[in-house]
Amino acid sequence: MAKFVYADNAGTTAMSKTALDAMLPYLTDYYGNPSSIYSLGRKSRAALDSAREKIASALNARPEEIFFTGGGTEADNWAIHAALEKMGKKGKHIVTSSIEHHAVGHTLAALEKNGYEVTYLPVDGNGQISLSELENAVRDDTVLVTIMMANNEIGTILPIAEIARIAKSKGALFHTDAVQAVGHIPVDVRALDADMLSLAAHKFRGPKGVGALFVKKGHAIPAFILGGGQERGRRSGTENVAGIVGMAAALEEAVQNMDGNIVKITKMRDRLIKELLKIPYSRLTGDPVNRLPGTASFVFECIEGEALVLSLDAKGVCASSGSACSSASLDPSHVLLAIGLKHEVAHGSLRLTVNEANTEDDIDYILDVLPPIISRLRDMSPLWEEKMNVRA
Amino acid sequence: MAKFVYADNAGTTAMSKTALDAMLPYLTDYYGNPSSIYSLGRKSRAALDSAREKIASALNARPEEIFFTGGGTEADNWAIHAALEKMGKKGKHIVTSSIEHHAVGHTLAALEKNGYEVTYLPVDGNGQISLSELENAVRDDTVLVTIMMANNEIGTILPIAEIARIAKSKGALFHTDAVQAVGHIPVDVRALDADMLSLAAHKFRGPKGVGALFVKKGHAIPAFILGGGQERGRRSGTENVAGIVGMAAALEEAVQNMDGNIVKITKMRDRLIKELLKIPYSRLTGDPVNRLPGTASFVFECIEGEALVLSLDAKGVCASSGSACSSASLDPSHVLLAIGLKHEVAHGSLRLTVNEANTEDDIDYILDVLPPIISRLRDMSPLWEEKMNVRA
Repeated sequence: MAKFVYADNAGTTAMSKTALDAMLPYLTDYYGNPSSIYSLGRKSRAALDSAREKIASALNARPEEIFFTGGGTEADNWAIHAALEKMGKKGKHIVTSSIEHHAVGHTLAALEKNGYEVTYLPVDGNGQISLSELENAVRDDTVLVTIMMANNEIGTILPIAEIARIAKSKGALFHTDAVQAVGHIPVDVRALDADMLSLAAHKFRGPKGVGALFVKKGHAIPAFILGGGQERGRRSGTENVAGIVGMAAALEEAVQNMDGNIVKITKMRDRLIKELLKIPYSRLTGDPVNRLPGTASFVFECIEGEALVLSLDAKGVCASSGSACSSASLDPSHVLLAIGLKHEVAHGSLRLTVNEANTEDDIDYILDVLPPIISRLRDMSPLWEEKMNVRA
Repeated sequence: MAKFVYADNAGTTAMSKTALDAMLPYLTDYYGNPSSIYSLGRKSRAALDSAREKIASALNARPEEIFFTGGGTEADNWAIHAALEKMGKKGKHIVTSSIEHHAVGHTLAALEKNGYEVTYLPVDGNGQISLSELENAVRDDTVLVTIMMANNEIGTILPIAEIARIAKSKGALFHTDAVQAVGHIPVDVRALDADMLSLAAHKFRGPKGVGALFVKKGHAIPAFILGGGQERGRRSGTENVAGIVGMAAALEEAVQNMDGNIVKITKMRDRLIKELLKIPYSRLTGDPVNRLPGTASFVFECIEGEALVLSLDAKGVCASSGSACSSASLDPSHVLLAIGLKHEVAHGSLRLTVNEANTEDDIDYILDVLPPIISRLRDMSPLWEEKMNVRA
């Protein structure tokens, strides 16, 4: 029987048993509307309060700084629009990086058509911005700096505390898309001094369709969705109680086990990196040191990433090429281009992302099946034939 | 042992077994990201496709006209902002009713501060607008008419087909918040000729935190949330696969059983109305004929709705006073004021909403416990004492 190895945990995760068990009562017996004043409603309200406390605690935030959303993308959209509306009098300039998730990048691109000016900071080969370039980019009319905490495609972790300090020293608000970081590496909003921070439950073994935006106390940001006044009037709509409870349980578990998980996951990641870099004409993408514990990302020359992913799928391995969110696209990933890869090289990207649910057996299996697939695909590739002829 | 009767189904519902059973595999084994190209991802993609077809079929829409959202409130917010952006060249005037849900009403109120003009059509004592007043209200610069299909507090069903015809004859877009209607009464988007229609899963025994916006084919409305390009670029963010599957299963079931359910539910509702109107100084709110099958809504003079709800809760009955979404508020409901009730009378509102999960036993129990509660609360009320003295 074919083995099944899920190695696309930066795309989404299987829910943890803890998260599922926490959710189920709120999908069955405890179905009250948290806005209702009878006991069944108050039960749901108490569950929301407890979830908010858990999430706040995981981020070293206060409960009143946590606003539940329908996911990380909504949180990013909201943060950006809220910052612009709040800071409208200061100006219309925004600073970001060239490797943001589309939830930030496409939102900013739309704003550029609407009178805003956006500076996209370049990154080096590791996916790092230059802090001095950031310092030069932030102007008197800069209202928002939004830079991700960790990249979804190449796993690079950016120095958010330093970035926030520069942004705020010039009077701009600072937002970070921490969707790939929360639950995986320590995230302390006080230490980072972020004004806003986005997270998504399904990236840390919680359910899909729920996330949160941290907003530092004192920033009375405008609402994103208006209606019944939920989330203290900032994000209306009957709360996804089960999803929120599942998110909180998943995050609490992730944070409790983080130290041990990081050791275990990093070991698996490093074995993938060490062994797969033995494949000729392969390269690690992303920062070799400051990278997410679970992200092993590569480019293999003369390979089509899509063919690689489908061949791995045939062997029971789930992996991705570029961002899962845009995997339907044929364009090479903007992140891989930003770190300086040529189009044809970027096409050969592979992202293997493991978490605490993976085992060393999974790594063995990937290391068994992947190299022969690459050999076979290269054997069929005219580009490879050409490269080998030139070499010979 | 105390009986438990849930009679707040317009606030939210317990999930049907069908919906929960449909969801569970997508909370456990089938956790793939629908954007991923491997088989686990394609499984989720197929589930979304199937859900979209079921929801389209339930509304007599096409699958490509259905966009999944995080709930009814998000759908309402999106519809309104999309209409204004799309129709910006025509004008800045919007027509609505004075009994809309806050998801529409508060969104429009915010737009009024932003250069838009809103006409709030008054309603009669039954909660019905005047079609001739609507005809007069729609102007050359009216870009949107948004009027709910059925009211959440008083159960009045509005004549949406006629309203849509008038709106569209004047070149305005027509949106209806059908959150209380879908799954409960026939909703045929072709017969209604609506441009946009909002629905929420948790009102028809689906999960909380998921909804949909119907957008008539040909209207290329702008996106609400930007990012990875999900929902054909209109509403980005990793899809809430389990929630969407649960919503589709719940709606399919509700539509399949609708005829029988309406008979059963109407009978329960009518018994509540007939018996509870025997209480002196009581009044039905909402249209006595064109009303939702499950909504029995009243005002009882010299009663505080909140005390009534809490007293019912002590007897194991879940009910609401005014809209569940604003039950934390002490202001009387804008709907009850719009139908001409005085403040002090509106405060004594009670909404009992039943669905197919209720039984005639539930109605017996409510009819047993409610009249003595009202007597007791009135015996403690100075207003009631005064009224009885005047009468004597």
